[in-house]
Amino acid sequence: MKIIIDTMGSDKGMEVIVKGALDAMAEKDFYPVFCGPEDELVKIIPNELIENDKVSIINAEDVIENTDEPALAIRRKKESSMVKGLRSLKNDEADGFLSTGSTGALLAGATLIIGRIENIDRAALTVSIPGVKSSTIVLDVGANMDCTPELIRQFAIMGTCYAKTVFNKNNPSVGLLNIGSEEGKGNTLTKESYKILSNQKLNFVGNIEPRDILDNDVDVIVTDGYDGNIMIKTIEGVASTIMGLLKEGIMSSTMTKIGGMLVKPALGGIKEKLDYRNLGSAPMLGSKKPVFKAHGSSDSLAIKNGIFQLIKFIEDDVINEITEIMRGE
Amino acid sequence: MKIIIDTMGSDKGMEVIVKGALDAMAEKDFYPVFCGPEDELVKIIPNELIENDKVSIINAEDVIENTDEPALAIRRKKESSMVKGLRSLKNDEADGFLSTGSTGALLAGATLIIGRIENIDRAALTVSIPGVKSSTIVLDVGANMDCTPELIRQFAIMGTCYAKTVFNKNNPSVGLLNIGSEEGKGNTLTKESYKILSNQKLNFVGNIEPRDILDNDVDVIVTDGYDGNIMIKTIEGVASTIMGLLKEGIMSSTMTKIGGMLVKPALGGIKEKLDYRNLGSAPMLGSKKPVFKAHGSSDSLAIKNGIFQLIKFIEDDVINEITEIMRGE
Repeated sequence: MKIIIDTMGSDKGMEVIVKGALDAMAEKDFYPVFCGPEDELVKIIPNELIENDKVSIINAEDVIENTDEPALAIRRKKESSMVKGLRSLKNDEADGFLSTGSTGALLAGATLIIGRIENIDRAALTVSIPGVKSSTIVLDVGANMDCTPELIRQFAIMGTCYAKTVFNKNNPSVGLLNIGSEEGKGNTLTKESYKILSNQKLNFVGNIEPRDILDNDVDVIVTDGYDGNIMIKTIEGVASTIMGLLKEGIMSSTMTKIGGMLVKPALGGIKEKLDYRNLGSAPMLGSKKPVFKAHGSSDSLAIKNGIFQLIKFIEDDVINEITEIMRGE
Repeated sequence: MKIIIDTMGSDKGMEVIVKGALDAMAEKDFYPVFCGPEDELVKIIPNELIENDKVSIINAEDVIENTDEPALAIRRKKESSMVKGLRSLKNDEADGFLSTGSTGALLAGATLIIGRIENIDRAALTVSIPGVKSSTIVLDVGANMDCTPELIRQFAIMGTCYAKTVFNKNNPSVGLLNIGSEEGKGNTLTKESYKILSNQKLNFVGNIEPRDILDNDVDVIVTDGYDGNIMIKTIEGVASTIMGLLKEGIMSSTMTKIGGMLVKPALGGIKEKLDYRNLGSAPMLGSKKPVFKAHGSSDSLAIKNGIFQLIKFIEDDVINEITEIMRGE
């Protein structure tokens, strides 16, 4: 299995991306194709791996920045690592693509270069949020603004396929993110989406309030990409603020420092539970080929786990599953 | 100063509401008017307070439930505590109204019974979110779905007045809740709102990401009510889940229990910082008279603080300030 890894666009530099991939190779059998500036990559990648054809490089000298207008960048920056990597995937030279770069550009690239599954109008950025009871798949978390109820319906179908195949859920439950639990709550989009979701061959369980986002037993939650992004960024911000305050509080006196050492095992468990690095990456669900986004600030552990997730996604053939179901639509 | 207190609609029962008000009386000079079933209230309120005319009661036997359709309930449930209380406020029999009841009904009541300030199209539920650096005023957090850029503009003006008067902020900074910090990010509403806010006599500082919601130095954040509600409910959920996991972790062994006792001062500080009960209540900003909503699960401390906030709101004459500014629009 060949995986193209975009080495550009990371907040932490390409060394971290390469290290994550090499760590992944030590645990799982796959062939990484690093996409980025060759002259720099050959200095980081151990020579014997290149010589023995255990890895290869696609030379790409340009990079798409977060500040670039996504669709324009995909069209114009033909020498960027993202465009060259996606073109290689499109030409069947590999099985999947992983990038830490601009979410907007990756979505535009997945659409303009790779294309969408038949009868899917938009690809959705899909994350798995760790929780107290179990993890929950949430889509869309930032690819599509101003969604329609029809898009929400498609997200629900794709999310169900993903939960079935990759997460081995039997008859996955689907919830609609909303500000109240009763039918009739919310804005025009959620009210209409509720009606449509109720009439599908889906295990629709109604509205899910964000209050229960880390403590629910729903398998899939669907939402407009703007609201999904507001929610995951709030989770990230609040978790990071609380853990920061906690650390600060513990460091504030000798007594609390000693206490901190004693409670450390308990704290570690929470950090582990809420750590996005254990999940690593998120598919652009709806793309014709596996395109994964990893967090811009991913460290090597996050990259390693992200690659594992992408490999499982390819092995489980999620895209074929979605394609079959959408063909019947 | 007379404050009407709706004793119905609380998750915790009317005893808690009355206790909160009596605790507030011990610290601040005001005259509470309890609105609810008289035969039950006389059993809870100390007799000498009624006899000496330190408090009074508006008898109301009906209650508006969270499941009632808001506008319909306000029109039809004429004997409910919320409707009778708001009518009394409307008739200048008191200076302010506080309720833990249905947010939707309270908004409908504020609009249909009390009425809005001239040139304000909608009242907004306005909270003050505690943060690491300082608290931030956020509106709207749930009164108005499907907002327009013009509503967002009005929220910004009202929020600025509120920050100036009640929170003593000089030239308050205003941010727009959005999924990215750069101009041009977000959905149709936030893109258009950004442009409009840039051209106002406001200290507009651009987009604020929810990642920074507990760690920013912006005085006022404006948002569509659906998104604002998603955000505050996510904050609430994540904070409660983490604190729960922490408690569970600390209780898991003798060693962590001892550690927990030692770090307790540090933990208490965080709880205090994030505790909605220290803020207590939220005004329906835009209403012609002071109408405050307190959390449905408020305990007596939250009610006490909620009353203090309402008193300060009346003393600082926020409504007059907004009225003056909007007259010039």
